[in-house]
Amino acid sequence: MVVRGIHHLGVAVQDLDEALETYVRLLGAVLEHRARVEDQGVEAAAVLVGSGRVELLAPLGEQTPVGKFLASRGPGMHHVAYEVADVRSELGRLTAAGADLIDEEPRQGLFGLQVAFLQPDALHGVLTEVVSVG
Amino acid sequence: MVVRGIHHLGVAVQDLDEALETYVRLLGAVLEHRARVEDQGVEAAAVLVGSGRVELLAPLGEQTPVGKFLASRGPGMHHVAYEVADVRSELGRLTAAGADLIDEEPRQGLFGLQVAFLQPDALHGVLTEVVSVG
Repeated sequence: MVVRGIHHLGVAVQDLDEALETYVRLLGAVLEHRARVEDQGVEAAAVLVGSGRVELLAPLGEQTPVGKFLASRGPGMHHVAYEVADVRSELGRLTAAGADLIDEEPRQGLFGLQVAFLQPDALHGVLTEVVSVG
Repeated sequence: MVVRGIHHLGVAVQDLDEALETYVRLLGAVLEHRARVEDQGVEAAAVLVGSGRVELLAPLGEQTPVGKFLASRGPGMHHVAYEVADVRSELGRLTAAGADLIDEEPRQGLFGLQVAFLQPDALHGVLTEVVSVG
């Protein structure tokens, strides 16, 4: 088994504080990390919902990736991230298996994760990320 | 902690066999359950992706809930389900916390689960389900 499980669900929101308050109040979420990442145009919060993790993503402007997503789709689920042991070797395996990639190489993601995104078409319209921790 | 974690991610697909093949080939998914549920207008497959679970949902017709979703949004993520100990008591807690519900009472979901859906607006545009097993 190459994929360990669902690392997080990425959710696009308009207002990070308001979304955080909702996740705490309704789902008992616990804040794990929060960061403003200028070069990705996003302010993000990772929350634990029981053993699950949700990344709440608020745009820093309308022309950012999350800002454009909100303008075209509205707030809601943005991507799913699967945890793997090593993103680089996983990208090789995925390419060999016929997947189209957005990121040909691992890059630094939020909260110190190594990440890479697949083209949504690779998983029938689901924007999918692979991540490894540390 | 009331919510135990993410039970599954629900994904709307056009062709169940094709989607299953993709999840097996790219993510090493393992089929857990598969069922055609006429009264919900859906053929569904639950797959394990490592320790995570994805429910692939294909419509039985254009006028079914998943058929309408595909027509308006295209294939992609449909809902997230959180596992709770008891759906009924969770619905009471959620109502008291101010959440608007689609299902005021637990109902039988796919694969023997007790389920209820919240209004997407309750979680800022994310269609959210609570489920309990057995």
